[in-house]
Amino acid sequence: MHTGEKRSVFSLSTHRVEALGDGVFAIVMTLLVLEIRVPVIAEHAVAHDLPGHLLALWPKFAAYAISFITLGVYWVGHHLQFASIHKADRNLLWINILFLLCAGFVPFTTALMGEYWTETLPVVLYGVNLIAVSLAIWVHWAYASHGRRLIAPEIDEGIVRSASRVILLGPVVYAVAIALAWVHTGISIALYGLANLLYIVPRGVHLHLKPSGGEGMQVG
Amino acid sequence: MHTGEKRSVFSLSTHRVEALGDGVFAIVMTLLVLEIRVPVIAEHAVAHDLPGHLLALWPKFAAYAISFITLGVYWVGHHLQFASIHKADRNLLWINILFLLCAGFVPFTTALMGEYWTETLPVVLYGVNLIAVSLAIWVHWAYASHGRRLIAPEIDEGIVRSASRVILLGPVVYAVAIALAWVHTGISIALYGLANLLYIVPRGVHLHLKPSGGEGMQVG
Amino acid sequence: MHTGEKRSVFSLSTHRVEALGDGVFAIVMTLLVLEIRVPVIAEHAVAHDLPGHLLALWPKFAAYAISFITLGVYWVGHHLQFASIHKADRNLLWINILFLLCAGFVPFTTALMGEYWTETLPVVLYGVNLIAVSLAIWVHWAYASHGRRLIAPEIDEGIVRSASRVILLGPVVYAVAIALAWVHTGISIALYGLANLLYIVPRGVHLHLKPSGGEGMQVG
Amino acid sequence: MHTGEKRSVFSLSTHRVEALGDGVFAIVMTLLVLEIRVPVIAEHAVAHDLPGHLLALWPKFAAYAISFITLGVYWVGHHLQFASIHKADRNLLWINILFLLCAGFVPFTTALMGEYWTETLPVVLYGVNLIAVSLAIWVHWAYASHGRRLIAPEIDEGIVRSASRVILLGPVVYAVAIALAWVHTGISIALYGLANLLYIVPRGVHLHLKPSGGEGMQVG
Repeated sequence: MHTGEKRSVFSLSTHRVEALGDGVFAIVMTLLVLEIRVPVIAEHAVAHDLPGHLLALWPKFAAYAISFITLGVYWVGHHLQFASIHKADRNLLWINILFLLCAGFVPFTTALMGEYWTETLPVVLYGVNLIAVSLAIWVHWAYASHGRRLIAPEIDEGIVRSASRVILLGPVVYAVAIALAWVHTGISIALYGLANLLYIVPRGVHLHLKPSGGEGMQVG
Repeated sequence: MHTGEKRSVFSLSTHRVEALGDGVFAIVMTLLVLEIRVPVIAEHAVAHDLPGHLLALWPKFAAYAISFITLGVYWVGHHLQFASIHKADRNLLWINILFLLCAGFVPFTTALMGEYWTETLPVVLYGVNLIAVSLAIWVHWAYASHGRRLIAPEIDEGIVRSASRVILLGPVVYAVAIALAWVHTGISIALYGLANLLYIVPRGVHLHLKPSGGEGMQVG
Repeated sequence: MHTGEKRSVFSLSTHRVEALGDGVFAIVMTLLVLEIRVPVIAEHAVAHDLPGHLLALWPKFAAYAISFITLGVYWVGHHLQFASIHKADRNLLWINILFLLCAGFVPFTTALMGEYWTETLPVVLYGVNLIAVSLAIWVHWAYASHGRRLIAPEIDEGIVRSASRVILLGPVVYAVAIALAWVHTGISIALYGLANLLYIVPRGVHLHLKPSGGEGMQVG
Repeated sequence: MHTGEKRSVFSLSTHRVEALGDGVFAIVMTLLVLEIRVPVIAEHAVAHDLPGHLLALWPKFAAYAISFITLGVYWVGHHLQFASIHKADRNLLWINILFLLCAGFVPFTTALMGEYWTETLPVVLYGVNLIAVSLAIWVHWAYASHGRRLIAPEIDEGIVRSASRVILLGPVVYAVAIALAWVHTGISIALYGLANLLYIVPRGVHLHLKPSGGEGMQVG
């Protein structure tokens, strides 16, 4: 392999990769709100029409909240991976940029679903976008952990495999939600939101780390 | 609790949580200005109409300044908390993301109030958004400091309780401002702006840290 | 003054203040381009009309470049100050947020001037905004350096005063440019752009640091 | 040259320069998606017209992906340079800001090309923008490495020259793509996208670092 010195010349620290990720996620999460436009109402009709116009925005508010939390889940997942990944290589970098490309597309599919939430197509496309994001982060972990390529030696093999399985829960639920879009788009959207509970409520890999006592804290 | 090694595998450092917060706040504060659009005026009428059109934007300028400073206050509060919080857990992370979700919504309610500032509803909704932001940051502190869960051992218990009270001053003032929106929306908006003086002018918890002499500096 | 321990509890490191500044500047500089909209042209007329429409955008391109570089100048100035400022206090923090509030307003005045560059008012307002930015950063330095309040002890007093004078060159040139807007707005805009050469071409405070030989490098 | 102490007073660390770059790139990459607007369709026609409207957006999706990946390439290049550059001076700083100015313009030329992709002019302008970005980063490296001005002493001279050549491959390919825009704009756009493979697929400077065995990792 490389000598330590030569590697340092051209290597990108995992810290920098995380910084770009932090930046993109902070911006994507914040841009979501730009897609909710202030209603334009003729001056004499504002007092009468504004409540109705704002109520009519509720699918956009819901889409904002679901996407914000979902992106929060993947931002957390991204950082959790880098807590185990102790070096980066060129391939990981490009998987990362692909992951960010998919995440960067979420404001568009969110706005599309918020605008036409009763239509099947936008609700399906939103799910496809989430599947792309979650598969990209799965490939990220699979590449880094395969043969323990880039992860720290102290990471337990059981945790590596458990993490892989936990990541794949997301796309499975999204696929179910996509299928349900032909039944009722509202059910699909609710499922996109509920899918985040898989990661917010501690389970799977995190159970291994459950403290044996104390105040019920789970790390990660 | 966890062994040090296992915790390091899946823990998120408080540093990363702060980085996401810095990013979201920097963006939200900056996006506010995007909601102020350059007036569109027919070419032959520009010289005559532009001053009037710009003057008519003053509620948006005021809303920009109030929201920028208010978000500045909460950004400072967020960092002050992390000066005491020396570790993060999964629950804190999600409270944080909820806090950022509420803050990320401020550009919308700011634009709404700037557009329809004489209407009660937008002024009330703006206050509700600020209450959500301030309650989220209060929950953040309450969770972290309850039973001294996540805060550094050297933090004085009096300061912990004092900080809680200071944070709750915000929502109390916002609630008063909301009630006044049915009297006069301009008074409410002025109160939203003045509420920041509670945090800019040193008082409450900060009094404990008042230097006994010197050039009148207060830290934090 | 404070004991070291108590200060650490509630102090904001200068590092965090710089991070918010980096974020706001990166975003403000990048948002500038959003104000340049792709021309909307009927499909059959695109081939014929597009060149003219793009040429007509040149005042916006110029305004973009001038504001980008000007903000770059103030970002550099902000960091140069923090190279000397080794601690932050509450007042400095609020001066900082005021500085960022003024800088955050530049995309609006840039878009306004780019749209109506032949009108006196937008060109004057742009200059007023730049004066606000430069006075805020002057207050920042004056506050930090007054009585050597927050700056590192090794900073030479001559450099402190020289820096103050250099910062004030900006508002002086902007004021001249504003006055010239009543003569010809194009001259004012050119002067806004040229003012940056004061800071890009090494002079003033930097002469003190001019290397006595070598490849002509100036630091800062 | 400077004494170490005086330099520290006014120097900007390469770390801060990288932070601004991270910020600008994260935002520029993320803003790209804002230029793809949700189609506006009358309510009764949504079910029928939405698929066609979304399909018609494909040139914008392609432009988004090409620009996102291209900016990713230059972000990586920027960081790889700073892995070798161990100090910054005033000139480097301004070359940097010029580089960011060019990169910050990409969302506009991307939106223009995505809107009018069958026209020669927007496709040529996109290429001109990419040439500006790549020449700016070439000047950045040429300035830093000339006479080993700002790069670490341990960097091999062969690698320095090889890096220069690799950077110039980009503008050469962009120039060819520009020329082909008069033949068929689709070919040009494809070539803009394919140009990234020059940097994603390991070659040139990176061959020097190719590991002699193992799991096929290339750093950088």
